[in-house]
Amino acid sequence: MVKKNSLKIIPLGGLSGIGKNMMVLEKDNHIIIIDCGIMFPDDDMPGIDFIIPDFSYIKKNKSKVKGIILTHGHEDHIGGLPFLFKEIDVPVYATKLTIGLTKIKFESSKNAPAVKYNEINPEEPLEIGPFHIDFFRVNHSVPDGVGLVIKTDIGTVVHTGDFKFDYDPIDNRVIQFSKIARAGEEGVLALLCDSTNAEEFGYTLPEKDVGKTLSEKFEKASKRIIVATFSSHIHRIQQVMDVASKLNKKVAISGKSILKTIRIAAELGYLKIPEDTIIPISKIDEFPLKEIVILSTGSQGEPLSALNRMALGEHKRISIMKGDMVIISASPVPGNERAISNTINRLIKKGADVYYESIAGVHVSGHAAREEIKIMINMVNPRYFIPIHGEDKHKIQAAQIAESMGIDQKNIIIAENGDIIKMNHNLCRISGNLHPQTIYVDGVGMGNIEDIVLKDRRVLSRNGIMFIVIGIDCIGKRIICEPDFILKGIIYIENLKKLLDEAKKIIRDTIKNCLNSNIINKTAIEGLVNDRMEKFIFKKAEIRPIIITRVIGPDRH
Amino acid sequence: MVKKNSLKIIPLGGLSGIGKNMMVLEKDNHIIIIDCGIMFPDDDMPGIDFIIPDFSYIKKNKSKVKGIILTHGHEDHIGGLPFLFKEIDVPVYATKLTIGLTKIKFESSKNAPAVKYNEINPEEPLEIGPFHIDFFRVNHSVPDGVGLVIKTDIGTVVHTGDFKFDYDPIDNRVIQFSKIARAGEEGVLALLCDSTNAEEFGYTLPEKDVGKTLSEKFEKASKRIIVATFSSHIHRIQQVMDVASKLNKKVAISGKSILKTIRIAAELGYLKIPEDTIIPISKIDEFPLKEIVILSTGSQGEPLSALNRMALGEHKRISIMKGDMVIISASPVPGNERAISNTINRLIKKGADVYYESIAGVHVSGHAAREEIKIMINMVNPRYFIPIHGEDKHKIQAAQIAESMGIDQKNIIIAENGDIIKMNHNLCRISGNLHPQTIYVDGVGMGNIEDIVLKDRRVLSRNGIMFIVIGIDCIGKRIICEPDFILKGIIYIENLKKLLDEAKKIIRDTIKNCLNSNIINKTAIEGLVNDRMEKFIFKKAEIRPIIITRVIGPDRH
Repeated sequence: MVKKNSLKIIPLGGLSGIGKNMMVLEKDNHIIIIDCGIMFPDDDMPGIDFIIPDFSYIKKNKSKVKGIILTHGHEDHIGGLPFLFKEIDVPVYATKLTIGLTKIKFESSKNAPAVKYNEINPEEPLEIGPFHIDFFRVNHSVPDGVGLVIKTDIGTVVHTGDFKFDYDPIDNRVIQFSKIARAGEEGVLALLCDSTNAEEFGYTLPEKDVGKTLSEKFEKASKRIIVATFSSHIHRIQQVMDVASKLNKKVAISGKSILKTIRIAAELGYLKIPEDTIIPISKIDEFPLKEIVILSTGSQGEPLSALNRMALGEHKRISIMKGDMVIISASPVPGNERAISNTINRLIKKGADVYYESIAGVHVSGHAAREEIKIMINMVNPRYFIPIHGEDKHKIQAAQIAESMGIDQKNIIIAENGDIIKMNHNLCRISGNLHPQTIYVDGVGMGNIEDIVLKDRRVLSRNGIMFIVIGIDCIGKRIICEPDFILKGIIYIENLKKLLDEAKKIIRDTIKNCLNSNIINKTAIEGLVNDRMEKFIFKKAEIRPIIITRVIGPDRH
Repeated sequence: MVKKNSLKIIPLGGLSGIGKNMMVLEKDNHIIIIDCGIMFPDDDMPGIDFIIPDFSYIKKNKSKVKGIILTHGHEDHIGGLPFLFKEIDVPVYATKLTIGLTKIKFESSKNAPAVKYNEINPEEPLEIGPFHIDFFRVNHSVPDGVGLVIKTDIGTVVHTGDFKFDYDPIDNRVIQFSKIARAGEEGVLALLCDSTNAEEFGYTLPEKDVGKTLSEKFEKASKRIIVATFSSHIHRIQQVMDVASKLNKKVAISGKSILKTIRIAAELGYLKIPEDTIIPISKIDEFPLKEIVILSTGSQGEPLSALNRMALGEHKRISIMKGDMVIISASPVPGNERAISNTINRLIKKGADVYYESIAGVHVSGHAAREEIKIMINMVNPRYFIPIHGEDKHKIQAAQIAESMGIDQKNIIIAENGDIIKMNHNLCRISGNLHPQTIYVDGVGMGNIEDIVLKDRRVLSRNGIMFIVIGIDCIGKRIICEPDFILKGIIYIENLKKLLDEAKKIIRDTIKNCLNSNIINKTAIEGLVNDRMEKFIFKKAEIRPIIITRVIGPDRH
């Protein structure tokens, strides 16, 4: 039995798919939240901007929430905060750069609340109610990330955040082995471990390897160089600038988000911009082609990004020329493969030499591969192992690694979003699930939309829609306006006019039959016309558009 | 100058993206066609079943077309034939299995024409007008594939079809080196070379390696085994059956397409079904779990496939149980990554142990990697090199390989679909382009739909649609039916009723203003109402649905 003096861990996101990371830790009526991110939608969620965690549990337990700790400044860890702050107002704890990046998030949201930021110094512990929190620096694809050692009177929980091991990182801040090992020596109850890259064999390569490749490519470029990367990848941006500066090239920046992060990172001292290197994008024509490096957004093939606009020939300032070198210094986020390939193909067609992940070493991941997960497990030596930040397939791979290292299968917890994990000295189990809903954000609309709207959108997009409007005087029992058709998104139909003429005749007959049989309820008539039309259109054209019939008349209000 | 006695090569498909492969060779008023395939749609073509080549050039030159040669039986090489045969009726030349697989295509199409099939014996040449064609067997992911050595009086063209080198293939039919080398020795003008895998370093692994992995996995399975693969991958299916038979397991088959190809391949002698191995799927419950192997479709995460139905718990006969082993023996076709991951995650959630490409050696490709492309170029030693079967990025990689091997850059032709490539002894150049259109197939509809319908579908799916119907007596200048709203695919709007009430008022005012100003043209009124509503809805909800206003009344017909 789990005793009363237990710790509750509730992942509200990040454990049933990659993204919207959010973890609740609850003890003695105190709640701390770790991260609050967004998730990007799948292809089958057309029009959705992003997905956020379901905050119902937080709303219900508002008074218990004592603080939010952010592990690092990526969208999938901080992007949900502006929405969370519509519900609660508690202190935010994060390192300096993470606070800087979070402020950008709030800048772009309406009616931004006054958030109370508390800067973390990873060398100093933090006390929040029953939680004593030590931090350890990690290596990742954004600087200033931390993992947490959370001590409570029933034991210690280690939360890795997102991490990799880099023994010679750009900022010389190696992941803090000693702190992790010390926690392990003192005894750890549970390890919540990043499993994003648990499918990858071996070790993730160091960031500096990318710098070497960039250097080689930059040296052989005879015209302009365009580098696209994630806008928060400050270390990558640092390397691009350093290599450019060494080779006496100038760097111009294209893309709003990357401009913002560069500004913030430079202000806070995380990016050292070499002297006389940056030029405004408006000045690129004043330099020889081979002195120009353009840093841009669009590494994921995003339709509106700077790189894709160049590829489409729609960029205001940059037209791709034969011999331009384009380096896509990123890997595709699953689901974006096709979009990136399209961008690459368009750039090639315009004459650019394009380098990307599968043919050139222009990117390394920010997440621990299998051998690094082993190092983490080894050092922490936890009683319970809980893979986080992954889809089911990643969590299972991480679990298998833990099992192969001797952790008892019954001490490995494969949890889902919403699971209530209870643990004490002797036991760790999932005691229930909050059944969180999927909260879609689209424009200012936000809510669980029960998937009906998405289903409609999918049918609309696959089959199109056909509207039929008829005016009927139901009292006088006569058609006062002939059937009128409006088609949207319906594919080319041979002899459309003939088909619609036939349809009109069928509708007229249907209505006459109704009126003759004294069916004068408009909804009933609409239903009958719809039925007839669905069958008729499928028979004639083998398509199934959404058909909506609306009968109007003087007696309808 | 290209002289009159030249050869025209026109790729109608396969050179501007992977799929719908189709090549026209024209000389002395004789045309032969190589392959006629389909292409699968991108995510931004909702509702499209597939894409076929534009046959305009064939229609215009009907009388010149003397035959169609099929290199192998994959969809992207034969799937367009039923559509082509609506335009022409000429002999089809192909190997035995390719003919068998082509017949299946025609079975599923309405009003199938009587196609004249001519079975190719790869050891015998074929004469069609000015073309003397020798065949060489190739290795690929479907048996009985061939490449072509096409001799004409101005020189020889080698068309590789899809190929890889497998020195110990399942059917013992190694790619016919000697024939390729002989053509090379005799002198080749142009090599049309499969470039699908030109991004892959090294060599593609042999098919038998998959057999070894399957054997290891099968041996350690303690419950049922489910293997999903491409339905035309006869050699993979052969290996599954052989391993199952060796271990005294029974094989049941689930999925229409795989059942059909197994039947055809077995009938024609390309698949040797081990005795007492196949059982009907209805009998699987009569055997112990660990004796059961299920071969199924769904390796691409297709929504309606057998494997996805199992993953969703919607398969009629198979419910996934804890400990079932699922092997996805295929690689994701670009664009399908997300769908496959979803299927994998669902299977894992149901308790299956899932093996797939990135974590286990359960698949090898059917296409030549870079080193194999080098072998081909080496043996054929062509004057002109033309990469085929690829996106721009693949063609460029293949071109760079050719250049690195000493082929002069000006003799490497990066062509597009529709390009008219003219060549003679001295010259090879692109003399124009036919500007082929994209022909979408959806239900029985087929045609170039100018992308308008697709654009509508995209907007519909992202933003939804709002219909406004109003009845106005324009002569009597009065509203006879109040504005009525129909919303589809529009995301949750807070206070929808209030918003629509406001909208109604605006519409009423707009109409009154119109009627007062003597604007009684219904189209004009519709336009004004639409404008007002678009602005109003965006202001209130920050969404931009398609808005369609229809004014009807007694005076409109």
